[in-house]
Amino acid sequence: MTDRIREFLRNRREDGPCVVVDLDVVRSNYAAFARALPDTRVFYAVKANPDPAILSALAELGSCFDCASVNEILMALAAGATPDRISFGNTIKKERDVARAFELGVRLFAVDCEAEVEKIARVAAGAKVFCRILCDGAGAEWPLSRKFGCVPEMAVDVLEHAHRLGLEAYGVSFHVGSQQKNVEAWDSALASASQIFRECMERGFSLSLVNLGGGFPAKYLQDVPAAEAYGEAIFRALSRHFGNAIPQTIIEPGRGMVGAAGLIEAEVVLISKKAADDDMRWVYLDIGKFGGLAETMEEAIRYPLVTPHDGDAMEPCVLAGPTCDSADVMYEKTPVMLPVSLAIGDKVLIEATGAYTTTYSAVAFNGFEPLRSYVI
Amino acid sequence: MTDRIREFLRNRREDGPCVVVDLDVVRSNYAAFARALPDTRVFYAVKANPDPAILSALAELGSCFDCASVNEILMALAAGATPDRISFGNTIKKERDVARAFELGVRLFAVDCEAEVEKIARVAAGAKVFCRILCDGAGAEWPLSRKFGCVPEMAVDVLEHAHRLGLEAYGVSFHVGSQQKNVEAWDSALASASQIFRECMERGFSLSLVNLGGGFPAKYLQDVPAAEAYGEAIFRALSRHFGNAIPQTIIEPGRGMVGAAGLIEAEVVLISKKAADDDMRWVYLDIGKFGGLAETMEEAIRYPLVTPHDGDAMEPCVLAGPTCDSADVMYEKTPVMLPVSLAIGDKVLIEATGAYTTTYSAVAFNGFEPLRSYVI
Repeated sequence: MTDRIREFLRNRREDGPCVVVDLDVVRSNYAAFARALPDTRVFYAVKANPDPAILSALAELGSCFDCASVNEILMALAAGATPDRISFGNTIKKERDVARAFELGVRLFAVDCEAEVEKIARVAAGAKVFCRILCDGAGAEWPLSRKFGCVPEMAVDVLEHAHRLGLEAYGVSFHVGSQQKNVEAWDSALASASQIFRECMERGFSLSLVNLGGGFPAKYLQDVPAAEAYGEAIFRALSRHFGNAIPQTIIEPGRGMVGAAGLIEAEVVLISKKAADDDMRWVYLDIGKFGGLAETMEEAIRYPLVTPHDGDAMEPCVLAGPTCDSADVMYEKTPVMLPVSLAIGDKVLIEATGAYTTTYSAVAFNGFEPLRSYVI
Repeated sequence: MTDRIREFLRNRREDGPCVVVDLDVVRSNYAAFARALPDTRVFYAVKANPDPAILSALAELGSCFDCASVNEILMALAAGATPDRISFGNTIKKERDVARAFELGVRLFAVDCEAEVEKIARVAAGAKVFCRILCDGAGAEWPLSRKFGCVPEMAVDVLEHAHRLGLEAYGVSFHVGSQQKNVEAWDSALASASQIFRECMERGFSLSLVNLGGGFPAKYLQDVPAAEAYGEAIFRALSRHFGNAIPQTIIEPGRGMVGAAGLIEAEVVLISKKAADDDMRWVYLDIGKFGGLAETMEEAIRYPLVTPHDGDAMEPCVLAGPTCDSADVMYEKTPVMLPVSLAIGDKVLIEATGAYTTTYSAVAFNGFEPLRSYVI
């Protein structure tokens, strides 16, 4: 909670939940990344929060942009980024979307298999491609599935395929898992990357780039290491595995850039028990899993909650959303502690919700409006 | 797949995934419910698919509407339903939304605790309330959480509270679990309901209504019982527990009304393996968990898939969506069987997706448009 957000909420008159993002925090997060990794280019992961004001502020600071779709590329361009500052970082792209991105000037594309390389070779001659490798994600709070990337051995073949088809086999990317709190998590992936660099060299072409991905955490309930700690650990790992030949590097922070910059103001709609002698209260907010808090899925991300009665006696509560969907329960396996004095109509602040909330929100589920967003 | 949908898709020129719903199927489903339960009023669960054309068609056939929010009430009214044909069926309502619904003429409200009764008493004097009770949901493919309802003993107190506050303590509701394939599932809940009717009578007021809820299945991969079988089993259970004093009843089909009436046309964006010697292919579509297929959450609902190569040799595949979100994997624990000859660019039909797809779709996740919908 910043003074600017507090002031904004004090004056807000509209009804319904909203997220408010403080651009000053975004700018200071950008500066922290730039300072912590001075030789690394920052590609903001647009998907975390594509609000035009955020993109413009970052573009002005010199940020590059990691885009998941043509629409995100268009938004980054509209915010003032030149195409050379844009990466089409989704490994799953329609060929016509690759073509459109290439027309728009984008030259950097993610791949993780030969079929994707072939699409790019057909419609984006000479473009740079980096191959994403699988990474175990240990230590991450939201570990990644095997959806993206291939095993390192296959990456060499994929990159060689790109090289043979006239593309620039440009580098390797990986993702150590979202909300990664272990600063050493990059080490083993960098070991794989350096091995791929060597094997490509042996096959007669050389790579230039290691895309270190995202995974940088936002502070939720527990403290997280500062950007500096990540920067130092990553630099050590780069030196360890690449020696004097440290490649170009980029990072793709999303959550780490905007997560802690925003919060959601919600309202308590109902507090009830399921039986007269029930110990557990159910607290229902006017926002839930379908209104922007999709990352509470399997209770993965636990957001800090602030109420007007903090300091009063607390008790465990189940926290649920307002829809008629029985899956719209946020925290039940591990209930949340809330004041006994919490009442219907109270406002609850859900902190660190600047990332992965606005665009995750459902269009009109149960007739509820999508999450309103203010960037101040 | 109906001839009308086939014809529509043959002529469609726009790019991107879409859902197409055939109104003839919706009408015939309505007729089947009306026939199977001739003394029961049908309240279509608007949240399943609130497309104006669906609401209008059902309004014309005489359907009533179960609404989850003021917006859904406005949509039902716009479709031609009079307020007496509308139930505000969400047990979690802001007091100002209750007031707004009451102003709009709605007189029937769901509750599951005294706090909700008090809101209604304050702003909707004389309205009818029914109390939702918990139900174990055994036999349902998407069993309900404990989010809605209270234990039957508490329901008597809640209804008595309503009666004392000048509301009409009108009845009892329950939900036997979504995609409920056991036609006998209503029996034990009806036993509880009849007990509540008796206890209320002993306390000096009488109830009129049993809201039998939804849960009626759509046909996905496996056959489901016909509406008649549900009608017969429910009638037997009503007779067993209420004898000659069978109360008014309503049902709230959503999935059972529109699920099988629609299908999604998607496109294969990428097919890949994670390693050269991997057995498992990953098939990525241009729609996933965030584009409308939220009910694949925990692989709960398994939709039938139709491809242009059905009949060729099949192999198990992981099925995933197009976003940069690692959670956007639909079927992995239990892979889907797809033709070996399936290729990038092929269209895949995802059947029985008329319910809980359009409004579940994310606003703009990863820059992708929400699911386009056509009701024909």
